[in-house]
Amino acid sequence: MEISENYYLQRRSCRNFTDRAVSDEMLRQIVRLAMKAPTCGNMQLYSIVSSRRGPGRAQLEALHFNQPAAVSADVILTVCADMDRFEKWCRVSGADPGYDNFLTWTSAYTDATILAQQITTIAEQMGLGTCYLGTVMYNAPEIADLLHLPPHVTPVAALAIGYPAAPGEETERLDVDGVLFDEHYPDLNGEQIKRIYEVKDNYPANRGFVKENGSASVAHLFTDIRYTRQTNEAISDKLTDYLRRCGLLK
Amino acid sequence: MEISENYYLQRRSCRNFTDRAVSDEMLRQIVRLAMKAPTCGNMQLYSIVSSRRGPGRAQLEALHFNQPAAVSADVILTVCADMDRFEKWCRVSGADPGYDNFLTWTSAYTDATILAQQITTIAEQMGLGTCYLGTVMYNAPEIADLLHLPPHVTPVAALAIGYPAAPGEETERLDVDGVLFDEHYPDLNGEQIKRIYEVKDNYPANRGFVKENGSASVAHLFTDIRYTRQTNEAISDKLTDYLRRCGLLK
Repeated sequence: MEISENYYLQRRSCRNFTDRAVSDEMLRQIVRLAMKAPTCGNMQLYSIVSSRRGPGRAQLEALHFNQPAAVSADVILTVCADMDRFEKWCRVSGADPGYDNFLTWTSAYTDATILAQQITTIAEQMGLGTCYLGTVMYNAPEIADLLHLPPHVTPVAALAIGYPAAPGEETERLDVDGVLFDEHYPDLNGEQIKRIYEVKDNYPANRGFVKENGSASVAHLFTDIRYTRQTNEAISDKLTDYLRRCGLLK
Repeated sequence: MEISENYYLQRRSCRNFTDRAVSDEMLRQIVRLAMKAPTCGNMQLYSIVSSRRGPGRAQLEALHFNQPAAVSADVILTVCADMDRFEKWCRVSGADPGYDNFLTWTSAYTDATILAQQITTIAEQMGLGTCYLGTVMYNAPEIADLLHLPPHVTPVAALAIGYPAAPGEETERLDVDGVLFDEHYPDLNGEQIKRIYEVKDNYPANRGFVKENGSASVAHLFTDIRYTRQTNEAISDKLTDYLRRCGLLK
């Protein structure tokens, strides 16, 4: 087996795509291969809705805040946690499914995310560019309506896929020592935390954003601009309300 | 770029490992490469606790119900959604983090699952065997205690990793037509569902399990034996109680 260490080390997300179409055949082959990824009890509690570029996609792009990756991608894959199809199979088999609960939703969430990541890896190794649209959680109920998802099918990941117009930006990562711990989670003190995050505090692009925004530190970019308490709490309420309406959270 | 279609098509999970140790160097290299996978806003809201085989691991193996994959694996990686380290960084930077909420937990859950799947793919391409231990959600609070996880670090995935003692079993998958839908989620009728699940209903190993258990159908194996309503609902309550105690769910 060829180990493509270079691919894993050098991969970057892509946020700008050319007009070139991804063929149906290629898309189906990517998904077919990705479906061999692990899935909980081989239940395959996932589905994908594929949205091609065109005038019919404007509403979906708006729900992703018209970010360039969403607008320029040839295809947006909305990868969903799907209990519904499995429940229907149980019922046509005369069995009584008990999958309208939070545990099964987490199993389906994991299944769908594993599938999304396998699609990402395979698509990139085939020369495509990909980008997760984290906005999928911000507007999950609206996306569910738009794509006609039944209550037991919830969006979990959205992937923008296409041929790259330009290489994605390289971004920094923490050192493995700050993430991988032996036997127990450590009680890290302030000095250790500062050392772990030095790479983010000193990364030139991050320092540029700090200057541009007049922020006090790189961390302030997250707390005060990108992911604020107020927005996080409002979206959390929206998301848990949605899961309750779907019958997946008490 | 080499496209290892064969790897993706032929991969299987491995549930039996030899005594051969996975070197620290190899494990660190796998995690280092995997950390280049996408992560929400490059926040890297994940951590991994590595548990090596030995007498000290008995409690962890018991929390995974002593399944052969857990007991024979050289290393069990507990991959966690981790807001704690990021929050500490915000605080040492003088910023006020608002990440004790359900939305951020889902971001971290996605980050951790993407990381787990990237580790799986890289480890397998390096010749190791891997298996997700779905039991991680059944005993999440106990695993958190055992590994000294603070409240804003929750287990999301557990990976058993080692050198394979035997090739894993091949398992069937649905056809791509049953999973990938164009533009909208379809309203599938009973006949369509039966056709989609024919591959599971007719798979020889599944038919063997049906006979062995005196079940009425393959679906009944799931509803009546493997994932029953009673267990799913009890574990759902346990899991949501745990997330509430952690301050991550209202």
